[in-house]
Amino acid sequence: MAAFNLDPFMRTQQERVETLLRESAERWGPAGTPPKLAESMRYSLLAGGKRLRPVLCLAFADAVTKSSTDTAAVRDAACALEYVHTYSLVHDDLPSMDNDDLRRGVPTNHKVYGEPLALLAGDGLLTEAFSLLASGPEPVRGTLCAELARASGAAGMVGGQALDIAADRAATLDYLLRLHRLKTGALILAACRMGVLAAGGDAAALASAVAYGEAVGLAFQIADDVLDVTSSAEAMGKPVGADAEAGRFTFPAVVGLDESRRMAAELVARAEAAVRPLEGADGPLAALARYSVERKS
Amino acid sequence: MAAFNLDPFMRTQQERVETLLRESAERWGPAGTPPKLAESMRYSLLAGGKRLRPVLCLAFADAVTKSSTDTAAVRDAACALEYVHTYSLVHDDLPSMDNDDLRRGVPTNHKVYGEPLALLAGDGLLTEAFSLLASGPEPVRGTLCAELARASGAAGMVGGQALDIAADRAATLDYLLRLHRLKTGALILAACRMGVLAAGGDAAALASAVAYGEAVGLAFQIADDVLDVTSSAEAMGKPVGADAEAGRFTFPAVVGLDESRRMAAELVARAEAAVRPLEGADGPLAALARYSVERKS
Repeated sequence: MAAFNLDPFMRTQQERVETLLRESAERWGPAGTPPKLAESMRYSLLAGGKRLRPVLCLAFADAVTKSSTDTAAVRDAACALEYVHTYSLVHDDLPSMDNDDLRRGVPTNHKVYGEPLALLAGDGLLTEAFSLLASGPEPVRGTLCAELARASGAAGMVGGQALDIAADRAATLDYLLRLHRLKTGALILAACRMGVLAAGGDAAALASAVAYGEAVGLAFQIADDVLDVTSSAEAMGKPVGADAEAGRFTFPAVVGLDESRRMAAELVARAEAAVRPLEGADGPLAALARYSVERKS
Repeated sequence: MAAFNLDPFMRTQQERVETLLRESAERWGPAGTPPKLAESMRYSLLAGGKRLRPVLCLAFADAVTKSSTDTAAVRDAACALEYVHTYSLVHDDLPSMDNDDLRRGVPTNHKVYGEPLALLAGDGLLTEAFSLLASGPEPVRGTLCAELARASGAAGMVGGQALDIAADRAATLDYLLRLHRLKTGALILAACRMGVLAAGGDAAALASAVAYGEAVGLAFQIADDVLDVTSSAEAMGKPVGADAEAGRFTFPAVVGLDESRRMAAELVARAEAAVRPLEGADGPLAALARYSVERKS
């Protein structure tokens, strides 16, 4: 059996997401939103990226409906997830946090618009995510707001960021797992759940989304850490493991590179198994699970 | 006829709000929310304040139901409004914004917890506002999320803050009115609307809330500006009007102190008239409208 061809699928889905994001950002017109604020929000939202969260959301919705004709609720869910992801990057890049000058190859929001407007652009993107979801149809709009808020709030993404800034080199694997389950895992899981819920999926589909989303969320983060180690090994000519010696708080630093890779592979297998009832033996969701660890950036 | 006695009413309502806020903050337990983040969120949320937005929300709900037995939807609406107000203060106080060291007589959030955690506490409070509303009963939870998101997003409070940081001394009265309609007016209006909607009020009650909320939102801000001028005149011994000469962008600076007071009084009269069908000749809402301009801080 030929394996699902991921590359053209990803390109098509990423273009689908770009179109949805551009259209949704037209809500921020000059009659309601100060133009400079809208420009700053659009700058970061439309700066590209993998669009993994909306792609997962759309893929689950498509798997549930057996079509790629998305409804307003599905489109809004996909966009709201990327609004929240983008706001978290804008705030993360601020001087008081990671103090990054570049993001996705272009200057960070505060480098272009200044810190005050970057802070507000982040606040705006977060709030507009809920505005978008809440403007959708009953009864799903309340459900989607609840899902997104839980995943991105104090017991989700924001909580994970708080664990991250408090992490030290003595932290344990348990701490690392909890940190990433909250910081990146919660929103990736929500992307899967929201795709099913927005598309009206049943309890079995939701259970697939939960098992898949938990596995892929963690696998994605482990792969990020592995990529960081191996690409610095190649690019910077320093031995693999230098990050671990420097006490950087990553999976390779805590459990080693081989164990990190083994964990990621096991999680991908678990994710593939979870969506087999939903899409058969080798569909886009299984391919996306592999992509989450095999990607080059 | 004896005028409604506002002082004991405000004390009672503020205590009612403090109890609701303390109870709602118990959601951020250590199993879900990192304790230091929860502490930082509680620090600012429970630091006191006038609680005008939740008090307005509860007063409208009480006027609609003719009782003070609030429902879960009303309680959540009142708390969510104060979460959003508090998050806006925490972010406003950050060094890159107003760089304030004190708020309500105690050190600002970032002075106690550092900038990164203060930023996250603000993000957390905003997100938890939607989490709280979205956890409520159908069908009103979607409506309340939509109201709060619209009022606090890019075409509401965040938009007003963006106009504020871009304002210069050449700005017009029209600019000032739009700035404050968004920056403070939108959330005060939402407080009134959400009280009616959470309590199941009819279209007439909602119309009262809109006319009242628009008037009180603006009157409150004009009073703030007037208070700033007059209390500095008394406290600092400098002549009234020094702020205007310094180019501070306030109502007294743009239209003068007398005209500012006249505008505020006219707005209060309009608000009183708007709620007469709902509560009769002299009820708590009329008293709250007067309070919004007659308060001492």
